[in-house]
Amino acid sequence: MEQYFFQTARSIIAGSGSLERLVEHLQRLGTLKSVLLVSQPFLQSSGTLDQVTSLLKSGGIAAHWNTDVQPEPTIAQLEALYSAIAEVPCDAIIGIGGGSVLDVVKLLSVMKTNSLSVRDMLGTDLIPNPGIPTVLIPTTSGTGSEVTPNAIVTLPEEELKIGVVSRHLLPALVILDPLLTLGLPRDITASTGMDAYTHALESFISNKANRFSDMFALESIRSISASILQAYHHGDDTKAREDMLIGSMYGGMALTCAGTAAVHALAYPIGGKFHVPHGVANSMLLPHVMEFNFDVIVERLALVAGAMGLQSGAGKQRDAEQVIERIRLWTQEMSIPQDLALFGAARGDIPGLSLAASQVTRLMGNNPKAMTLEDIGAVYGKLFH
Amino acid sequence: MEQYFFQTARSIIAGSGSLERLVEHLQRLGTLKSVLLVSQPFLQSSGTLDQVTSLLKSGGIAAHWNTDVQPEPTIAQLEALYSAIAEVPCDAIIGIGGGSVLDVVKLLSVMKTNSLSVRDMLGTDLIPNPGIPTVLIPTTSGTGSEVTPNAIVTLPEEELKIGVVSRHLLPALVILDPLLTLGLPRDITASTGMDAYTHALESFISNKANRFSDMFALESIRSISASILQAYHHGDDTKAREDMLIGSMYGGMALTCAGTAAVHALAYPIGGKFHVPHGVANSMLLPHVMEFNFDVIVERLALVAGAMGLQSGAGKQRDAEQVIERIRLWTQEMSIPQDLALFGAARGDIPGLSLAASQVTRLMGNNPKAMTLEDIGAVYGKLFH
Ligand SMILES: NC(=O)c1ccc[n+]([C@@H]2O[C@H](COP(=O)([O-])OP(=O)(O)OC[C@H]3O[C@@H](n4cnc5c(N)ncnc54)[C@H](O)[C@@H]3O)[C@@H](O)[C@H]2O)c1
Ligand SMILES: NC(=O)c1ccc[n+]([C@@H]2O[C@H](COP(=O)([O-])OP(=O)(O)OC[C@H]3O[C@@H](n4cnc5c(N)ncnc54)[C@H](O)[C@@H]3O)[C@@H](O)[C@H]2O)c1
Ligand SMILES: [Fe+2]
Ligand SMILES: [Fe+2]
Repeated sequence: MEQYFFQTARSIIAGSGSLERLVEHLQRLGTLKSVLLVSQPFLQSSGTLDQVTSLLKSGGIAAHWNTDVQPEPTIAQLEALYSAIAEVPCDAIIGIGGGSVLDVVKLLSVMKTNSLSVRDMLGTDLIPNPGIPTVLIPTTSGTGSEVTPNAIVTLPEEELKIGVVSRHLLPALVILDPLLTLGLPRDITASTGMDAYTHALESFISNKANRFSDMFALESIRSISASILQAYHHGDDTKAREDMLIGSMYGGMALTCAGTAAVHALAYPIGGKFHVPHGVANSMLLPHVMEFNFDVIVERLALVAGAMGLQSGAGKQRDAEQVIERIRLWTQEMSIPQDLALFGAARGDIPGLSLAASQVTRLMGNNPKAMTLEDIGAVYGKLFH
Repeated sequence: MEQYFFQTARSIIAGSGSLERLVEHLQRLGTLKSVLLVSQPFLQSSGTLDQVTSLLKSGGIAAHWNTDVQPEPTIAQLEALYSAIAEVPCDAIIGIGGGSVLDVVKLLSVMKTNSLSVRDMLGTDLIPNPGIPTVLIPTTSGTGSEVTPNAIVTLPEEELKIGVVSRHLLPALVILDPLLTLGLPRDITASTGMDAYTHALESFISNKANRFSDMFALESIRSISASILQAYHHGDDTKAREDMLIGSMYGGMALTCAGTAAVHALAYPIGGKFHVPHGVANSMLLPHVMEFNFDVIVERLALVAGAMGLQSGAGKQRDAEQVIERIRLWTQEMSIPQDLALFGAARGDIPGLSLAASQVTRLMGNNPKAMTLEDIGAVYGKLFH
């Protein structure tokens, strides 16, 4: 008796220039007098924050700003941000930025309506009350966080990254405007694009894969593989940027239904301890974890090959191999670092990292092949060249 | 600058036996003391209403029933139902049934919180307040109403069917349990299945088709074409029933993004005036309207052929023709009536029907080829043999 589940953002507008329709869609959420805009400094310099403020003004909505979000935020940073905005009157919070900004906004929204510390929220379904409505506008393609019930925080003391999972983290409105991603620097296009691809691929091979997640995963894979190199080499190609943004959203929908697996479980400890950016961590691990899983996922990888236009004509085994080869080719062509030593890690760190990864049971449980501590250590070992 | 939009139910559980999880998911909606169950007599005899009542009871939730929904309900029937339930205390309304029941529940929910008559709601976005939360559990595969912001009512005086469209009609929870559809009689399996297919196909050729609707439409077409005859001939095949239910939901998602078109515009008048069941009306019209559109939709129909496994190897034109041939074959094999005279209509009715259809501008505007009154009349003419 297989059962499966889907939930997502209440409404999603997409397409080039869709940011212009912010106010029209905000008004459907009810009467909003004043909103809080949360972002990062790059949006100030790009002029986007001014654009949004004047859009809101024309709709009679007052806007307050905070652009102090740090990449891959820690609990302490989140709490500092919360103190800074606690007194700001707002009927909704708009987040414009990468996954770091979106995750922060999701958490600020529920911190406003729940008398819980962030630590108390770590885990699944621990938030009793809905938050104030959020609008999530991604500027990376990326985490898919705009459509997931997850937010990831860094615990520097424990050298860990942990997830808060609650349907109250889902936004009221998502805007996917590729124009906002045209200026994304090459290296971030590369690493965040690989994160999105990893969401789709891990959901597709997850033990919890189902017909909802499969559809989203394959569409995500189709869209991302058609455009990742083009978006990297020609960042001003709106069509390629749109493919990446939609692909990343579908990746988020896929992971909401099926969960990510060992790649993400192994990525969090190297993010927490060595500050490897999330997408880079995934890119490093992806081919090695897929090779570890290989014998039990040949059929699935062959289907992935189909979505990537990689049918070899030489059978499923060969098709599946081509997927992993293509991943290596991408990382190489996009110069994504593959050596963990570059981030200050040494082979001696492997046992500690392995233990931490093995404790990410929410994700490890989705991996199609169980991993012992030794298996995990062997994968980490491949990140030292 | 193409922009597109997606909105759906807040959460969806699916799979054989998923009805058993009703209470667990209801509890996530907040504290519910008492709910109203709206349905039709067949669910009483099948034992489903007893099952649901005892599930609710085990969760400490009181249940009130109303099973008086008429197929393809009129405004007067809806208002009578509303009077009957107005005093029933309920924190949520659960609808279990075909599209007729689901549409009624969507409207009762907003009637409870808006001091508007149903007539005032006819049209798009005319409902100011959200309704009380609804749970929609389809027992036909079918309308996809469980995931659309639409509800259709019959105006017998005007001999018309009209839509209410509002995001407040979207439910909090959807349960797609194929076990509830195992007993669906053959003729209803056939006609409602063709309705679902029509939603997908019309969304795919709609002027408003976009990458969201395309994904849902093709997946719907894939799922329905793989299983419609099996579900018809072997109604107890849970897998085929699940394919139909998921396909019908994706059809609803597709039409929410892209809208249906001339088939539905022409179906409403013959439903309103001659009480042709909605799915039968669509089945009659579908091949003729697609032939009318043919020259401008060859490319799209060829893609549909791909999703249906109908590649001829003889080019797109031939692939596209095969789609229409397959539709005819289905209607024939499933004995869906094709003659409008069987419902009491005569050729003399054509001008009145054509005028009415031309006034369904919301849907006519989506048709890839404009239809004059004469064009519409010619299509209706083909329904007389
Ligand atoms: N919630 C989820 O479902 C989910 C899923 C995966 C990852 N995550 C989390 O999301 C975070 C990573 O998010 P990310 O990968 O989007 O990176 P990010 O948000 O940390 O952004 C990376 C860098 O890019 C910059 N940037 C973002 N958009 C830009 C633009 N348009 N132009 C120029 N610069 C821009 C940012 O300022 C930042 O310096 C991590 O904390 C990760 O754990 C969350
Ligand atoms: N809201 C939307 O988006 C949307 C879309 C398309 C159609 N509609 C509307 O939905 C209505 C049609 O809905 P429908 O096609 O599902 O038919 P229906 O709800 O009218 O049901 C048809 C018949 O089947 C019976 N039935 C339903 N489920 C059964 C089961 N499991 N076992 C035995 N009998 C069962 C019903 O009692 C009824 O007699 C029309 O009013 C149509 O206009 C709405
Ligand atoms: Fe990720
Ligand atoms: Fe329909």
